[in-house]
Amino acid sequence: MAKSFVRNCWYVAAWSHEVGEDVLFSRTILGEPILLYRTADGSAVALADRCAHRHAPLSIGRKEGDCVRCMYHGLKYDQLGRCVEIPGQIAVPARLQVKRYPLAERGRWIFVWMGQPDKVDTALLPDVSALHHPDWRMKPGYMHYNANYLVISDNLLDFSHLSYVHETTLGGTQTIAETRPTIEKISRGVRVTRRVANTVPAPYQVQFGKFTGPVDRYWLYDYLVPGILLMDSGVTSSGRADSGTSLKFRSCQALTPESEKATHYFFMQAHSFALGDESVTELLYQSVVGAFNEDRRMIEAQQQVIDLGSADDMVVLPFDLGLIQFRRTIEDLIKSESNSNAPPP
Amino acid sequence: MAKSFVRNCWYVAAWSHEVGEDVLFSRTILGEPILLYRTADGSAVALADRCAHRHAPLSIGRKEGDCVRCMYHGLKYDQLGRCVEIPGQIAVPARLQVKRYPLAERGRWIFVWMGQPDKVDTALLPDVSALHHPDWRMKPGYMHYNANYLVISDNLLDFSHLSYVHETTLGGTQTIAETRPTIEKISRGVRVTRRVANTVPAPYQVQFGKFTGPVDRYWLYDYLVPGILLMDSGVTSSGRADSGTSLKFRSCQALTPESEKATHYFFMQAHSFALGDESVTELLYQSVVGAFNEDRRMIEAQQQVIDLGSADDMVVLPFDLGLIQFRRTIEDLIKSESNSNAPPP
Amino acid sequence: MAKSFVRNCWYVAAWSHEVGEDVLFSRTILGEPILLYRTADGSAVALADRCAHRHAPLSIGRKEGDCVRCMYHGLKYDQLGRCVEIPGQIAVPARLQVKRYPLAERGRWIFVWMGQPDKVDTALLPDVSALHHPDWRMKPGYMHYNANYLVISDNLLDFSHLSYVHETTLGGTQTIAETRPTIEKISRGVRVTRRVANTVPAPYQVQFGKFTGPVDRYWLYDYLVPGILLMDSGVTSSGRADSGTSLKFRSCQALTPESEKATHYFFMQAHSFALGDESVTELLYQSVVGAFNEDRRMIEAQQQVIDLGSADDMVVLPFDLGLIQFRRTIEDLIKSESNSNAPPP
Repeated sequence: MAKSFVRNCWYVAAWSHEVGEDVLFSRTILGEPILLYRTADGSAVALADRCAHRHAPLSIGRKEGDCVRCMYHGLKYDQLGRCVEIPGQIAVPARLQVKRYPLAERGRWIFVWMGQPDKVDTALLPDVSALHHPDWRMKPGYMHYNANYLVISDNLLDFSHLSYVHETTLGGTQTIAETRPTIEKISRGVRVTRRVANTVPAPYQVQFGKFTGPVDRYWLYDYLVPGILLMDSGVTSSGRADSGTSLKFRSCQALTPESEKATHYFFMQAHSFALGDESVTELLYQSVVGAFNEDRRMIEAQQQVIDLGSADDMVVLPFDLGLIQFRRTIEDLIKSESNSNAPPP
Repeated sequence: MAKSFVRNCWYVAAWSHEVGEDVLFSRTILGEPILLYRTADGSAVALADRCAHRHAPLSIGRKEGDCVRCMYHGLKYDQLGRCVEIPGQIAVPARLQVKRYPLAERGRWIFVWMGQPDKVDTALLPDVSALHHPDWRMKPGYMHYNANYLVISDNLLDFSHLSYVHETTLGGTQTIAETRPTIEKISRGVRVTRRVANTVPAPYQVQFGKFTGPVDRYWLYDYLVPGILLMDSGVTSSGRADSGTSLKFRSCQALTPESEKATHYFFMQAHSFALGDESVTELLYQSVVGAFNEDRRMIEAQQQVIDLGSADDMVVLPFDLGLIQFRRTIEDLIKSESNSNAPPP
Repeated sequence: MAKSFVRNCWYVAAWSHEVGEDVLFSRTILGEPILLYRTADGSAVALADRCAHRHAPLSIGRKEGDCVRCMYHGLKYDQLGRCVEIPGQIAVPARLQVKRYPLAERGRWIFVWMGQPDKVDTALLPDVSALHHPDWRMKPGYMHYNANYLVISDNLLDFSHLSYVHETTLGGTQTIAETRPTIEKISRGVRVTRRVANTVPAPYQVQFGKFTGPVDRYWLYDYLVPGILLMDSGVTSSGRADSGTSLKFRSCQALTPESEKATHYFFMQAHSFALGDESVTELLYQSVVGAFNEDRRMIEAQQQVIDLGSADDMVVLPFDLGLIQFRRTIEDLIKSESNSNAPPP
């Protein structure tokens, strides 16, 4: 299992609002149960969600101030994971602690570092300022997938699927599939630029933008390790067409493996127009959720077929360039982590 | 897995009516997902139900004329499994194809050949003319079993279970269990002849035949690789009894492994009397379904016990002769296929 | 699997009342399906719940006098497990039998011996006379656990969890966790003595005993292989407090592995006061069931965390003394059984 995931990177563990003031929130990430909660000053904390003693989950324990008490035998841990109390026992062994995961909260996402503590690097945190920028408005989304995160990742790295999976919901005309994007290798990821001229807008874009003629659309995004998509997209009336108006969107999406077979999917799509109109935010959210359910249906069905047999004989096509590069990036990172962990010869 | 099934033979994949005109029908056979559909001329087609590209199931794609389009990225395949279109790409590599399964439609069954294409042999198709003969009438049946196909096969090869499993539904008096059938080895199967004199008719036979006294019953059937039962059966008033009338039935039943642990079961029982009376067909169907549910309850319970431990210590009894011979036939075929696939020394 | 359980010991298979007069009762123990029924003289019988022929479960067969008939092909077995009839076959091979499990019924528990027949030792049966003693009254309980029996066993060997898991239901003040019990190694088990002075009574004790002040409580129990708890417990007004009265309880609890992952839990708590008052028995039962559901919630959650990863890194604390000793006893017995079964050198 250790070899399937990049460890030294930040994974989105939760939306900020999921970890409320008095909540002991639990989520399994890379097969590890993690407890998330907040101290009195509002800081989020991530600890192993298993008591060091008999592995009872702390998340069904009790929050006491900035500490959490295991409600099996009463061991109490502070926000650094150190056991600070064992009922009926005066001395607490120093080694008695639960793993603390380095944590960073950015925008409205809580990230945890799943790798070596001495390699923690906040410079590796993606820029998700769109999540909370005053010029942008969105409604946060979460989905659970019964599929490996890389199979979902493949989908996000090739928007030619819009033409087929999202034919009616995201305005996926065949033109999109026929237009090749530019794929660039960037540090720890892939940059995708796709522009399609003289096509049709998505239904929600028609509603917002009053487009009556053909439009030009674009999707510019970085897809970063371990599975984070940061995108600017938009739509404008084509050529000199004078109907309708330009619309711009921003999207942040993150895949976090629960296990080899299941994935957490955090997403949002923000708009910069009609900021005061809540119904716009809601409609945009519903459109995205509808489309993402189309993806999930396809990808979970694909995963079931993959599970029946070997995936070795997949045929590589030109539009797989992005996903091939990203999968290679992941593999290289896993390999290099594996080497650096090897015992000296 | 390859060693568990005979490959070079015909498996029933579906009832003809399951693969309707505009349908993309999917069924997993020997662990392989298979797409079934019909071209404009009505011919049925069987292709691997996974796109060569990223293994999305074609069955959730779109039928376009005689072709099927994968609705993930838009690849289009013709009825031979050849990819004929990749959106946005002019040249389609010749190797880009999905497996096509040889197919034969007989009576109302669609058979697929799961073995080597160069060994396809229509002479191996069983004679299932009873399925659509104008002198016979029936209602088709399908059941899904959570059991290995050979465990169900055992049941069909030893009707002494009628006395116990179907005590009240199929008139299974103890006489049936006490009467030994004749078992003959035939090509790729076993022939079973069982005649029981002076016994009681099944409830549905009483209803159809107005029997008031004892009856003579018979079951004559061939049980063929990979698990196909073709039977003539009937009931007549015993001796000189002048009440009631003779009734004749024909039955075709087929087991097709979905996996090692699950099986598709296709069946029908046809009658040659009261051909114009739909209620007779329906009552016969309901009687058979009722009895087959009794079998399934027993066999799935048996499978659960088998799953708890080794099946090695089963005791062989004289009435196992048919099933022992059939299991040996299957084993021999699997072994010979395995040898013929072995690389030259 | 053979190495995970002690074989040469008595396991509780059922409450006496579960095996009624006309019942074929089935329960899986150590992964083996076992049939329980009663002969005409009321004696309970335990046979392998699988016909020697094709492994159909006998429990979905038919009771015929003191025998059971498999309703697949009609084989009939007597209460010793010997096949006494094969339909249509005169001679029955002597070897045709199903395993008979040595059985003992004590109090209201039916025990089965899962080990070698020549090692059967009724002296190893625990004294469960409290289960049916006229001075005690109780209502029997049963629960199914999705957890390994040793993980549940751990819980029963350390009542310091009362303070946390049963904070509100069993009066688990922190004092209990802070008071160390005495742990003694006894033959095939552990003796636990825990006395807590000046504490609060459980809610049900208040209701029964009208305690208004602090109380002294005690729990004295033996915990025996393979997982049987026999306990005297009680509560008295502390010091010279003259309110309320003493209450005494007896409890018998038994864990029987269904498999490595699931456990049968038989339990009762008896009272010696208000013997004629059924509502006392019912309230006591409900209190215990409520508390045991709290245990189950915690332990099944703990098991899920354990299943996510290695349990090797659990930290041993002083209050684990009882469970460590008991686990060692189990391991030693398994090891010695494994050695005695080893072929001679």
